[in-house]
Amino acid sequence: MDIRKKSLMKHYEWGGKIEVVSRCKVESREDLSLAYTPGVAEACIKIKENPEESYALTRRHNLVAVITDGTAVLGLGDIGPLAGMPVMEGKCALFKEFAGVDAFPICVASKSADEIVRTVSLISGSFGGINLEDISAPRCFEIEARLKECCDIPVFHDDQHGTAIVVAAALINALKVVGKDISEVKVTINGAGSAGIAICRHLINIGIKNVIMVDKFGIICQGDDTLNDSHKKIAEITNKSHLRGTLADAMVGADVFIGVSAPGVVSQDMIRSMNPGAIVFPMANPTPEIMPNLAEEAGAAVVGTGRSDFKNQINNVLAFPGIFKGALEVRARDINEEMKAAASFALADYVKAEELSADNIIPSALDKNVARVVADAVIAAARKSGVARL
Amino acid sequence: MDIRKKSLMKHYEWGGKIEVVSRCKVESREDLSLAYTPGVAEACIKIKENPEESYALTRRHNLVAVITDGTAVLGLGDIGPLAGMPVMEGKCALFKEFAGVDAFPICVASKSADEIVRTVSLISGSFGGINLEDISAPRCFEIEARLKECCDIPVFHDDQHGTAIVVAAALINALKVVGKDISEVKVTINGAGSAGIAICRHLINIGIKNVIMVDKFGIICQGDDTLNDSHKKIAEITNKSHLRGTLADAMVGADVFIGVSAPGVVSQDMIRSMNPGAIVFPMANPTPEIMPNLAEEAGAAVVGTGRSDFKNQINNVLAFPGIFKGALEVRARDINEEMKAAASFALADYVKAEELSADNIIPSALDKNVARVVADAVIAAARKSGVARL
Repeated sequence: MDIRKKSLMKHYEWGGKIEVVSRCKVESREDLSLAYTPGVAEACIKIKENPEESYALTRRHNLVAVITDGTAVLGLGDIGPLAGMPVMEGKCALFKEFAGVDAFPICVASKSADEIVRTVSLISGSFGGINLEDISAPRCFEIEARLKECCDIPVFHDDQHGTAIVVAAALINALKVVGKDISEVKVTINGAGSAGIAICRHLINIGIKNVIMVDKFGIICQGDDTLNDSHKKIAEITNKSHLRGTLADAMVGADVFIGVSAPGVVSQDMIRSMNPGAIVFPMANPTPEIMPNLAEEAGAAVVGTGRSDFKNQINNVLAFPGIFKGALEVRARDINEEMKAAASFALADYVKAEELSADNIIPSALDKNVARVVADAVIAAARKSGVARL
Repeated sequence: MDIRKKSLMKHYEWGGKIEVVSRCKVESREDLSLAYTPGVAEACIKIKENPEESYALTRRHNLVAVITDGTAVLGLGDIGPLAGMPVMEGKCALFKEFAGVDAFPICVASKSADEIVRTVSLISGSFGGINLEDISAPRCFEIEARLKECCDIPVFHDDQHGTAIVVAAALINALKVVGKDISEVKVTINGAGSAGIAICRHLINIGIKNVIMVDKFGIICQGDDTLNDSHKKIAEITNKSHLRGTLADAMVGADVFIGVSAPGVVSQDMIRSMNPGAIVFPMANPTPEIMPNLAEEAGAAVVGTGRSDFKNQINNVLAFPGIFKGALEVRARDINEEMKAAASFALADYVKAEELSADNIIPSALDKNVARVVADAVIAAARKSGVARL
């Protein structure tokens, strides 16, 4: 049976992919007095005296809100808040299954950045962290930036940073396979939406010096007045040679291609125009920019996609559970660049040298030990960069 | 050990009284594709086509938001949103333990009714019902009324209606014990805050004709220009003989006293001034308006309080789990007067005639069969009154 039809059937069966359960039994009068009135008053007073106690005395120390407005759900686009909820619940299930982190899905029925920011910030005290999900660009940039300002808990837009962290990990290992230095390669990224821009920034953050960003209209180049604000900003830190032209132009002599764009936009000729030892990550979902076998036929040395049915699956589930687990465990105020970089390197290092090959650059998306490893790296980076509160 | 100290210790041990768990295992690639991408897209599309499908395909069919602004928490008053959370978590634990209903606690860091209404309504699509909790009067009236208008899911302020439903159940049975007719008794309610006003309205709704409301300043009487809005409204339906004076004046010749006010404000003389067969519910917490033994000594025939260490405990936990269970099961648009009345009569009827006595007018707060009985009554009333969608 088709996986989507089967999934729909399972969804009816599950009746919700998450559930809220009680951690305290209530069977005697004493149980009731301890979990609820009058006993609970003491915990309230403790928090009133010291708000930090809310972490010890309520669930927020292990609790993430998964928040969407339903404007950019999977490849389905703006399907609305209610229709986005199955994805949010799925994400919450993965948080628990992969990292033991409690996560609760909330959809916000507004497209106004002001209103979303205000709503999320007003309820943020109920949580230990905020995972933004499937919010369309460029609103997602503003919403994330403003929430980071006004919330004292970590805020993380997974479509941007989760993707960037895993792509970077795959790239770090792919570069080892082809024997190239991170500071010397030329990277072409096709698709300058939220994921593409975040990947670009993160790669620069971990040491890549030469990135060309391409969007539907062509190469993003400083001085182009038709660029939108986010593209203008990204133009300042990419394409230092001021190249103009099409995706094909951007791929000539590239060492790395990263696609977060559309099916089939990369030809074999484009792959052939890349440098020897080309690394190709066509991640459009479900149909990649170029199918892996075609890319390899055209000379790609390492290929990774977003799909589970091909090797080297670049999947966010490798990052977000461990990132939040680490951030929560040290009560980090933020998930900063240092923590994201640490997560990428930890993910890459998790693939042992003797197992590393063109067919194996990234841990399996199903490996449930990954979250702990990522969390530990994130914790160390949070402490070192001064955002850990524990 | 003091129950509050022990409760605090347990709170540190619990590390949160609720937890979010996954209802779907994620162990194979297929699991991942079913619970998350790409399979989940199909459930999203179904909801996009028909928003009602969100009940079948996500957890909202069994999910209540427990929402506070922290302005009237227990007897502690305005202790703020974070400090209110242990109570909200406790409530959520009770929802699950008593009715199998998932409930999730959210605090809103605002005291503006506008902002609370907007925030709750924007996130309401994530839930099947909204339980408002510990919001101070008179804001709670406006917030509840406006949310009922703008949300298509049931909204219920438990401090008002939960209390009223259980008080009414206790009263229905107490009247049987003393052999008085509901339509003929005179009821004096002391404390015209949110609970007192809700009790008053609900008692009138179930057939009480003669209620006198008293607040700190004395008897509430129509024509008194110093009354606030909620008191003016309640004056229109109470105190038809336009009695003025003190609580003592209001108790002369009363058949029923209900206190939701302050410790020790009722004297034995006041009880003596009531009609024979007096029913006395001094529910101030933790110290009642008059201690049960003193009330009985002064001639009260039936006494009930909010406390678990006295007989006849009038406890909200008898109502809210079953109310929401019923409302959710038939996807009620509202929790209306008919449903609340049905809950009161079902609760009263649950005490078998042969077990009914002055010492046993209300089911035990620990009886986990109560929620089902209440839910069934609520379901029937929801259907009959046309608010059930299933």
